[in-house]
Amino acid sequence: MSDTRIADVRVTPIAFYDPPLLNNAGCHQPFALRSIIEVETEDGVVGLGESYGSQAVLDALAKVTPKLAGLDVTDLNALWARARAEVQGEMQGYTGNERLLPRVVSAVEVAMWDAFGKSTGRRVCDLLGGQVRETVPFSAYLFYKFAHHITASEPDAWGAALTPEGLVEQARRMKDLHGFDAIKLKAGILPPDEEIAGLRALRAAFPDAPLRIDPNGGWTVATALRLLPQLTGLIQYLEDPTVGIDGNAQVQAATDIPLATNMYVVANEHLPANMAQDAFRVILSDHHYWGGLQASRELGRICDIWGIGLSMHSNSHMGISLAAMAHLAAATPNLTYDCDTHYPWQTDEVIEGGKLAFEAGSLRLPDGPGLGVTLDRAELARLHQNYLDCGITVRDDATEMKKHWPDWEFGRPKF
Amino acid sequence: MSDTRIADVRVTPIAFYDPPLLNNAGCHQPFALRSIIEVETEDGVVGLGESYGSQAVLDALAKVTPKLAGLDVTDLNALWARARAEVQGEMQGYTGNERLLPRVVSAVEVAMWDAFGKSTGRRVCDLLGGQVRETVPFSAYLFYKFAHHITASEPDAWGAALTPEGLVEQARRMKDLHGFDAIKLKAGILPPDEEIAGLRALRAAFPDAPLRIDPNGGWTVATALRLLPQLTGLIQYLEDPTVGIDGNAQVQAATDIPLATNMYVVANEHLPANMAQDAFRVILSDHHYWGGLQASRELGRICDIWGIGLSMHSNSHMGISLAAMAHLAAATPNLTYDCDTHYPWQTDEVIEGGKLAFEAGSLRLPDGPGLGVTLDRAELARLHQNYLDCGITVRDDATEMKKHWPDWEFGRPKF
Repeated sequence: MSDTRIADVRVTPIAFYDPPLLNNAGCHQPFALRSIIEVETEDGVVGLGESYGSQAVLDALAKVTPKLAGLDVTDLNALWARARAEVQGEMQGYTGNERLLPRVVSAVEVAMWDAFGKSTGRRVCDLLGGQVRETVPFSAYLFYKFAHHITASEPDAWGAALTPEGLVEQARRMKDLHGFDAIKLKAGILPPDEEIAGLRALRAAFPDAPLRIDPNGGWTVATALRLLPQLTGLIQYLEDPTVGIDGNAQVQAATDIPLATNMYVVANEHLPANMAQDAFRVILSDHHYWGGLQASRELGRICDIWGIGLSMHSNSHMGISLAAMAHLAAATPNLTYDCDTHYPWQTDEVIEGGKLAFEAGSLRLPDGPGLGVTLDRAELARLHQNYLDCGITVRDDATEMKKHWPDWEFGRPKF
Repeated sequence: MSDTRIADVRVTPIAFYDPPLLNNAGCHQPFALRSIIEVETEDGVVGLGESYGSQAVLDALAKVTPKLAGLDVTDLNALWARARAEVQGEMQGYTGNERLLPRVVSAVEVAMWDAFGKSTGRRVCDLLGGQVRETVPFSAYLFYKFAHHITASEPDAWGAALTPEGLVEQARRMKDLHGFDAIKLKAGILPPDEEIAGLRALRAAFPDAPLRIDPNGGWTVATALRLLPQLTGLIQYLEDPTVGIDGNAQVQAATDIPLATNMYVVANEHLPANMAQDAFRVILSDHHYWGGLQASRELGRICDIWGIGLSMHSNSHMGISLAAMAHLAAATPNLTYDCDTHYPWQTDEVIEGGKLAFEAGSLRLPDGPGLGVTLDRAELARLHQNYLDCGITVRDDATEMKKHWPDWEFGRPKF
């Protein structure tokens, strides 16, 4: 029997290039932050995790990881207990105040699953209950975007997309490169009728593609209600049209379009109210903030029991996160919608062999035990140096946005 | 890496001696039925499970088990899929129509966990997320009972218990033998005021023992409401006082005593209605009918999220079931009440080393990987011969009851 007790946990912050993608909170900065977690067992097996790289998460990880030596990599209950003893409180995040505990647990938990899989010759999807699909389908994730960052002078490979035509061009490139079926539009940036004109252009260009729009809580209830007739028959689901469970429940009560969320049902404690109020009929799960792969599998079961649709949310991320998402999705029978991913927007990578490839819009699980990925230490070092050099320690889309549009003001709801 | 694909699944029905214990449905027959499941891997490791022994479950297992060859013991999703393809429908059970599928899955699933644990040198509680308690607390499970079966002439070791004094004597013996703290009274047999007199006698004899009463749906809503003032301050929880979610919700609305159930929230599909109606505030889980250890762990998480108390239900069982219950409970952080078990009423055993022992009312997990128990093949053969000889193939408490009390009639609610 291999000795799977934790000998050491290492956390390396990295920064990788990120394009100027727009959302309700502003514009992506030139670098996105992430942390790479390595859990090394007494037998020298290294399990990998990937999580947020903002200072609050790094600080919390710095408190927790020294307390994990000696734990078996299967002991998730002890991970929760030890993390709970060290980490309380919240950080200011995209959706408001976000609890640190499940984020810190998840960062380590994925690496523990990977280490257990590598130690026993099992894939993570097998340890999560067994693979139910050969490949995991992802959706094209469209963003309004600037042609280049304010610090650059030449357009990036994607160019600008601030009009319906620009979105169609972006979607065509995304589909040509990766073969995605469904198309999601990040919205809440332009006046809603312009964004819906974008959806209509996408529908005309891609008659069979399931469409989604995500205003990130950017619309008032009244705006959302006004727009429902235009959205009916056009979209597969409507993601976070307005703010909060109460507000979205008012919108859901007025439409058969399922409302989806990754903003207002983001932790266990939001589930009872959501079920009681029928606010959201689709949950975009995310193992990075739900507390890891075990908690996400449990969330999947809850969605199944309550008849709630299930898909996956994404932030800018590397291949370790993509592999973890794919293993979880592969082991989740009731994955009812193609998953989101920012991955096509990323050009850097920390895993050996470079970026994982989608085929016909889907990802085949990487070969091998655990998550099936290993670290490219040269790239890790380079991206860590990026982190040290870039000077960014907290994501701040609003400040970045004002460099492009000085008069821009944050509002949620805004329209 | 060990080859943990399933080579063979064996099911052996057994019958073991059971005392004449009374409940709302009648009287226990002289033999209780169980099935012993052995999952053997390609490497020759044998995982153990224990489940119901009634004909309907044996028939369903006979359909499913030949379809499992080649499955990895970690592939619970495939177990569900293959079982679903073979097993539909329900059987007539204690609580009405009971779905066969989760019962069949559970029978095999526990043995798969045991095989995986034995193959990788891990205990089942470790594979379920890690041990959170050194020992698992159980409660004394009191029954009204006859002195002996109708076929015997001498009282058994416990003697009769049909009066408050008899119950106190039974409780004293149970506590002396095993050290249990909480006391549960199986009720719904005698007129309710007699049963409450029994509770009062127990309270007088054991001033500090948490008390519970389980009428098994034997009371009308009106009776339950009438009795609430007498029960307030006397009991820890009130189990299934009346029939159904609607009826019990009426009772729960009238009292701060938590209502518990193992009769009306017994499958995933009952959870949304229970949460919406606030019918039961405690669920007595049972991995034998919730679909196994993984599903039961998920149930535990659901209870935690919705603020529902959690304990465990029991039928007459052997040490394999007790070990599985203990591993599950040991890995469940939010086990809020001492578990039920019929185990002290059983004198036979199928595991090596004989019966597991409670210390101060709690069970220490058996040593060793998997569930920590192995089969005593001589005892298995003897109890299988019992099964062949006893002629019982379906539990029938009502017919047995009428042998003692010819005028007895089943009623639920009855009082």
